[in-house]
Amino acid sequence: MSKLTDVPKRILIGRALRSDKLGETLLPKRIALPVFASDPLSSVAYAPGEVLLVLSVAGLSAYHFSPWIALAVVVLMFTVVASYRQNVHAYPSGGGDYEVATTNLGPKAGLTVASALLVDYVLTVAVSISSGIENLGSAVPFIVEHKVASAVAVILLLTLMNLRGVKESGSLFAIPTYVFVAGVFIMIVWGAYKGIVLDETMKAPTADFEIKAEHQGLAGFALVFLLLRAFSSGCAALTGVEAISNGVPAFRKPKSKNAATTLALMGGLAVTMFCGIIFLAMATDVRMAEKPAEDLLHNGVPVGEGYVQDPVISQVAAAVFGDGTFFFIVLAAATALVLFLAANTAYNGFPLLGSILAQDRYLPRQLHTRGDRLTFSNGIVLLAGAAALLVWVYGADSTRLIQLYIVGVFVSFTLSQIGMVRHWNRHLATERDPAKRRHMIRSRAINAFGAFFTGLVLVVVLATKFTHGAWVALLGMVIFYGTMTAIRRHYDSVADEIAAAEERPDEYVRPSRVRSVVLVSKLHKPTLRALAYAKLLHAHELEALTVSVDPAETKALKEEWERRGINVPLKILDSPYREITRPVIEYVKSIRRESPRDAVSVYIPEYVVGHWYEHLLHNQSALRLKGRLLFTPGVMVTSVPYQLQSSEAAKKRARKRQEWNAPGSVRRGPVEKRQKEPAAKNN
Amino acid sequence: MSKLTDVPKRILIGRALRSDKLGETLLPKRIALPVFASDPLSSVAYAPGEVLLVLSVAGLSAYHFSPWIALAVVVLMFTVVASYRQNVHAYPSGGGDYEVATTNLGPKAGLTVASALLVDYVLTVAVSISSGIENLGSAVPFIVEHKVASAVAVILLLTLMNLRGVKESGSLFAIPTYVFVAGVFIMIVWGAYKGIVLDETMKAPTADFEIKAEHQGLAGFALVFLLLRAFSSGCAALTGVEAISNGVPAFRKPKSKNAATTLALMGGLAVTMFCGIIFLAMATDVRMAEKPAEDLLHNGVPVGEGYVQDPVISQVAAAVFGDGTFFFIVLAAATALVLFLAANTAYNGFPLLGSILAQDRYLPRQLHTRGDRLTFSNGIVLLAGAAALLVWVYGADSTRLIQLYIVGVFVSFTLSQIGMVRHWNRHLATERDPAKRRHMIRSRAINAFGAFFTGLVLVVVLATKFTHGAWVALLGMVIFYGTMTAIRRHYDSVADEIAAAEERPDEYVRPSRVRSVVLVSKLHKPTLRALAYAKLLHAHELEALTVSVDPAETKALKEEWERRGINVPLKILDSPYREITRPVIEYVKSIRRESPRDAVSVYIPEYVVGHWYEHLLHNQSALRLKGRLLFTPGVMVTSVPYQLQSSEAAKKRARKRQEWNAPGSVRRGPVEKRQKEPAAKNN
Repeated sequence: MSKLTDVPKRILIGRALRSDKLGETLLPKRIALPVFASDPLSSVAYAPGEVLLVLSVAGLSAYHFSPWIALAVVVLMFTVVASYRQNVHAYPSGGGDYEVATTNLGPKAGLTVASALLVDYVLTVAVSISSGIENLGSAVPFIVEHKVASAVAVILLLTLMNLRGVKESGSLFAIPTYVFVAGVFIMIVWGAYKGIVLDETMKAPTADFEIKAEHQGLAGFALVFLLLRAFSSGCAALTGVEAISNGVPAFRKPKSKNAATTLALMGGLAVTMFCGIIFLAMATDVRMAEKPAEDLLHNGVPVGEGYVQDPVISQVAAAVFGDGTFFFIVLAAATALVLFLAANTAYNGFPLLGSILAQDRYLPRQLHTRGDRLTFSNGIVLLAGAAALLVWVYGADSTRLIQLYIVGVFVSFTLSQIGMVRHWNRHLATERDPAKRRHMIRSRAINAFGAFFTGLVLVVVLATKFTHGAWVALLGMVIFYGTMTAIRRHYDSVADEIAAAEERPDEYVRPSRVRSVVLVSKLHKPTLRALAYAKLLHAHELEALTVSVDPAETKALKEEWERRGINVPLKILDSPYREITRPVIEYVKSIRRESPRDAVSVYIPEYVVGHWYEHLLHNQSALRLKGRLLFTPGVMVTSVPYQLQSSEAAKKRARKRQEWNAPGSVRRGPVEKRQKEPAAKNN
Repeated sequence: MSKLTDVPKRILIGRALRSDKLGETLLPKRIALPVFASDPLSSVAYAPGEVLLVLSVAGLSAYHFSPWIALAVVVLMFTVVASYRQNVHAYPSGGGDYEVATTNLGPKAGLTVASALLVDYVLTVAVSISSGIENLGSAVPFIVEHKVASAVAVILLLTLMNLRGVKESGSLFAIPTYVFVAGVFIMIVWGAYKGIVLDETMKAPTADFEIKAEHQGLAGFALVFLLLRAFSSGCAALTGVEAISNGVPAFRKPKSKNAATTLALMGGLAVTMFCGIIFLAMATDVRMAEKPAEDLLHNGVPVGEGYVQDPVISQVAAAVFGDGTFFFIVLAAATALVLFLAANTAYNGFPLLGSILAQDRYLPRQLHTRGDRLTFSNGIVLLAGAAALLVWVYGADSTRLIQLYIVGVFVSFTLSQIGMVRHWNRHLATERDPAKRRHMIRSRAINAFGAFFTGLVLVVVLATKFTHGAWVALLGMVIFYGTMTAIRRHYDSVADEIAAAEERPDEYVRPSRVRSVVLVSKLHKPTLRALAYAKLLHAHELEALTVSVDPAETKALKEEWERRGINVPLKILDSPYREITRPVIEYVKSIRRESPRDAVSVYIPEYVVGHWYEHLLHNQSALRLKGRLLFTPGVMVTSVPYQLQSSEAAKKRARKRQEWNAPGSVRRGPVEKRQKEPAAKNN
């Protein structure tokens, strides 16, 4: 009956994909880049500003360190990109850092990485949306005036979109990402042209401000510490780089090679944009302070609480294109959009990682279904709730949120790279082909350097940011880690408990006979059906059981039973308190006492209804009875459903639910190629 | 194993009562009076004050109408008591007004009475507790300064007590009630002695205050209206009179006679106390105003917002005994305690009425168990929530809450008395014995007068109180009525749908064969048990079914299957998306397509656990699968439970729950004597 209505839908959105057809949806590099890189590329919208902000603590003079810090970030970016290019070759299954760490360093390291990534996803949402709101706010003041409310509204919107299920397409990511990248490049080129060729003076809106140094004349260790802090903040540009290593299966063949190329492309774009923005910020005299209200002076007077410090990218755009011009607005809009897309990627990644963890029994087992709606719903609500909480607590201030952000990223970078070194060691132990060995040794060197460098950055980040907020992220990791360990331990102990011994053990005295008991309240269709079904399965004894809560009704039942000539004996239990559960349980126990080797099979007619409120009106006694019967040994409980007309409504809802598309399927690629254990050799 | 620990318990609280032993706990009159009369007796704590309060609108001079109004209340009380003495004789089953109205006036009238009573129970809690707080506050100022919070705290305390289940005893009610009654009588006698014999002047704390009339010199219709309003407020003294008619089964034999005597006793006590307090209030010049802040003047100046108007009973006690004296404190405490006990009776009555309504399918069927914990919990939480809401909205002001109170009481009085008139008419139509006929005609006359008088009062209450708040009570009644009608209609339509035709209808083509399918994930004890049980019940075909979510695991399962030599074929379904539900449903459907006359029996091994959080970790896939299978026609679903060690905890909890005592069992008496339909003849 729904076949006809399917036709227009098929024309509009195409036939539902069978898993073996997913191959056709593989991503070419030009689409894969925006799909995977919205997170790392968008972070150039806030990372350069964070560097200037931290440097301002030592006064305006410290700004001249910023090119050096940019250089350090660039080196780090190249290191990380080079390292992950090894990862995508070695682990084309898309398991990502969790897989690499688990396989090579053991489950504890894997779980640490997983905890770090989970925290990271939460922060990706919080930071990206806060920053997006700030960028949008540079064009639309109303939004920045209601920062927290706007950020929470965007979180809510993304949540609803993802709960509903969005049919993702590559172009959804491609257009705003390319507009953003193009915008930034045009800005850099146009700025360079204006400044160098035309020799025009470009002035950022804050160019005339002065900065009051919190610590005048920092030197020695204090200065080094400050520079390290600035570098740590700049490292925000690296967040999301690992995304491609999770998405290898979504690439066209040769998958690993294409993924590696895309990774390099992304790294190149990111560092160019990062450096370009820092360079333009210096050229246009952008002034940013950590505490603008106190430390940013206009004509010698602090600008005060009312002042809104626009993001560096928008200040530079104002200087190059002019404030409020068409290009300025377009860039602000594209920046905000890319940041929101970056947040959206966490909405896909968080539940996906959850389903992988569920597969390894660190999370409730039923979540392991891939792209399952329930998994996604639970994951999405948890993610959105945590992100909204952070946004609210930190006043949607991206600068304060970034303090929490970078720890998780570098925990997983470091462990993943250490794992890769182990991976190569393992393979080198058996590999004999000299060419391949040379290749592996080179890869190992890259990963070893990556592990060393990211580990160093992790130490720096921990040292410089711990009190600024990194402890919150660590606490979050500990909570995730603890919960998942406890769940796994529970599953393991249950698995031990229920493991079947190889020999048939004593407790497996198979019951010799079955007595079937059909519960009857009235003689209506559901009861008749239950009786018919019970008869089909030949028990050694079969009887019907009713609980007499009303003598008159029981009498009527007995009479009808005889009149209809039902050839099953009817047993009547008295219940002066109108209880159902207790008399039935007592009776079943008495059967078991009489003949302990008999099993009892209880048939319960069950109404199938279509609305939640109808559940309150039906089956409640049956459900409670069933719940109690399950505790009685030697019993099995059979529900014989009777579908009421209203159940059609629920059927339709279930059918609709089946058509639901898990968000993020584009980024994940087809599933068949992904296997759990075997890591492919270097190709 | 728990037998030994039972011994001390048995010594302490006695062996658990079997329903046939309940007869021994029947109440003698001296205990029945306080058990049933705490509600009507306690209302003399606020009813006299309400009369004075309303009269004050016309100024102090209107106070001289108060004896006349007291007289009208006394006449009404005698009428109602006389009427209900007929009820307890005619309906000794304890069904109360709901039963009388349903039997004689039809289900709509019955449902109206039930709605009125449900609203009434809510208001009993709200009014009694608010008034109790005011009385306690006259001795402890702190309490009246935090009136709403204190009232809500008492509601919460009563709720928790009742949720936990209290072992009620008659003395729990007897002591405070007798202390209260004795206290009031001592006060009246001592006051009369001091005033008349010693000729001392007693002055209430407010004796020197003046009252500013809101309407000076009221006359004609306006005055009559005011007097009627004052009378309506005085009628608050009658609330709870019907309680005894619900409790006849709890009395010692001769039940009806003892109940009628207790009713008369209660009426006599109530009117004496009511009149005594009014008389003392006049003698000690108590001054109460509807809006004390504006209309109560001290030395010509309004007393202002900060003034707390103490209840009339405490003002009189202050005048007679002296403020703060021992007797004053004892009376205030006893008054508060009796009022809280009155509120507690609603905690018993509300869920009990709910279970009677559930029996008649006006409420979810599973609530019909008598004294069932779930019924009580749901009812208690609903009652407490509604009462707390009212207390909060009306600022725990008993005067404002009383405006809502009296409508419901008189709706049920009036309908019950009209029903009784019909009852006698019906019996007179067949009765031939002249002595009995004379008796019946006399009873009918009493009930007819009761119906007329209470109906008149209902009209007066509606007319004088509608805008003052009675509309809220009416709205509550309409909501209850509508909900219960909708539930009943749903049940009726389902009953029609599932009614079995007398001839075996076509849709009852009995399935010819059963195919049994055992769901298998791993080969552990729960699975082996499910296989063993499935084999016991001889199906025409038996197979095991597994969903392959992980090729490696499936391979291992297959190998173990063969190694153990399990003689059941194992069917493997592929599931690239790691889904469980869909492949199984599709497979079951395909079986049904192949041979539509086969039924399918699906066996699901189920873990039985002991803690709620373990439920999140187990069986979720099984439950979802079961939920979906129920929608598939021709399927029955069998749960084969495997009790994990942790399930012992749940077993213990269930055992504890069984020992739970429904509150109010003392007031209800044993259940065997209560039958639904047949009304006993007049004895």
